[in-house]
Amino acid sequence: MRTMEEYRALVEKALQNALPQKNGFSDVLYDACAYSLYASGKRLRPCLVLAAAEYMGVPVSEAMPYALAIEMIHTFSLIHDDLPAMDNDVLRRGKPTNHVVYGEAMAILAGDGLLTYAFEYMLQGAAKYPEHAQAHLRAIYAIASAAGLSGMGAGQSADVDYEKHGAAGKNKEALLSYIHENKTAAMIRGALLAGIELGDPDDKTRAAFAAYGKNMGIAFQIADDILDATSTTEEMGKTVGKDEAEGKLTYVALYGLDEARVHLENLTRDAITAIEPVDRKHYFASLAQALLTRKN
Amino acid sequence: MRTMEEYRALVEKALQNALPQKNGFSDVLYDACAYSLYASGKRLRPCLVLAAAEYMGVPVSEAMPYALAIEMIHTFSLIHDDLPAMDNDVLRRGKPTNHVVYGEAMAILAGDGLLTYAFEYMLQGAAKYPEHAQAHLRAIYAIASAAGLSGMGAGQSADVDYEKHGAAGKNKEALLSYIHENKTAAMIRGALLAGIELGDPDDKTRAAFAAYGKNMGIAFQIADDILDATSTTEEMGKTVGKDEAEGKLTYVALYGLDEARVHLENLTRDAITAIEPVDRKHYFASLAQALLTRKN
Repeated sequence: MRTMEEYRALVEKALQNALPQKNGFSDVLYDACAYSLYASGKRLRPCLVLAAAEYMGVPVSEAMPYALAIEMIHTFSLIHDDLPAMDNDVLRRGKPTNHVVYGEAMAILAGDGLLTYAFEYMLQGAAKYPEHAQAHLRAIYAIASAAGLSGMGAGQSADVDYEKHGAAGKNKEALLSYIHENKTAAMIRGALLAGIELGDPDDKTRAAFAAYGKNMGIAFQIADDILDATSTTEEMGKTVGKDEAEGKLTYVALYGLDEARVHLENLTRDAITAIEPVDRKHYFASLAQALLTRKN
Repeated sequence: MRTMEEYRALVEKALQNALPQKNGFSDVLYDACAYSLYASGKRLRPCLVLAAAEYMGVPVSEAMPYALAIEMIHTFSLIHDDLPAMDNDVLRRGKPTNHVVYGEAMAILAGDGLLTYAFEYMLQGAAKYPEHAQAHLRAIYAIASAAGLSGMGAGQSADVDYEKHGAAGKNKEALLSYIHENKTAAMIRGALLAGIELGDPDDKTRAAFAAYGKNMGIAFQIADDILDATSTTEEMGKTVGKDEAEGKLTYVALYGLDEARVHLENLTRDAITAIEPVDRKHYFASLAQALLTRKN
């Protein structure tokens, strides 16, 4: 296994050749996809795919399509999130958002295109390992279920619905947990599980990584909520302070900064406990610890 | 093999149980997905999946997830197409469009959700046939590549780009072919190929269905262009006459009604010729013929 920085460098390199060649007819679409996909990001999710796969003894080359696909899906979610009808954000990853540059229609299509292409890309990768088809089907499923109607999409909709209609009789604590679990944690957990599934894991390993990913994912979102309330736009490369301005349901809004920090520490500890049963647990424990103290 | 009406009845029945159960947190999203997915439609693409699968000796039960998934993807494309930033349509399948009922943000998320869930749903289906994993991977790939950056998404973007910027130096005839081939024909061809792939086809069969699907798909879109220019909104269940009003690049706009009708007949004949090499060619020839004379 390598450091996260090493994985990140491998991801950045592979990303550059991931999109289809231009064809003279849909070049604006490809430009719009590339604009957001190649914008500098943490690449956390793809690095988790690679780390989990290498942990299982799966080579980086076999896992890379899944790493890139999950970054495409993450990028799609950012493009659509930023749309005027959604969060109406103009700054992302230090650059004007996709719709500001390419217009709303093309930004919608770029998001749709990246989401669909992520699956096409994983399936192309899977076709190279016919003897390993079942494991690849499971890895794609881990990503699809994390992104979809029982995952990220469900979390997004609950988030949007809260902004429009408030809690509407729902328990606010339960609703916040649901939003964070689905909007953010599902894809972080999905990234780890996709990597693990490629290596035919036993149930114990699967359960350990699922619990680790879920706790780390929620912790990651709480850290994001805290940074939104305490950082500058320059530090973050995206507009900050909007959560409060828009009345978003966040850990900081519901519990205050101090209690949010306690939640963050507890969840990080839970993540570290969850990964105890697996080998090289220290690698993954350090990873959770590093995310806890991130600055952007 | 059954009649298209019989396939349609099977699809309608299976669709009713296809979406996830409500969970109290994302119910609006599920309602928005169901609203458009259950709205009465021709269900052409799913019926093509089932007919092609049964032709290959694959049972309807194994092919059904692919049929429903392609209808979910088709529905996603309609919801996003109708958005204010895209075609800004208020009527679809005889009902107010998704964003008119649920708002723009939820309509974007419902489209995203249906697209992602389509893959989740196919993968759940595939998991039931471990001994047939490679065929299932090929079927999902047929659908992913038809829907994505080298298929429907590419066609949509060229369409949108033309409305905004005109042909911009491109050959209009070539551009129109590109749009129709990708926006519409790719998914009709993809539906047939998904069904075929489940049955481990030889290259001759694959090529015959690919050419048949492509020609029939373009013919289907030309018929749509003609109906848009000659029907009433009531007959079609969606706003007609908008192609001309918005300066869309269509067969009717570029060649006139008479020549569009000649194109339609020629392509139908090409589709029928393409399917000649396969058994039960009469079944598929009649199907192409029936689409030629459709009234909505």
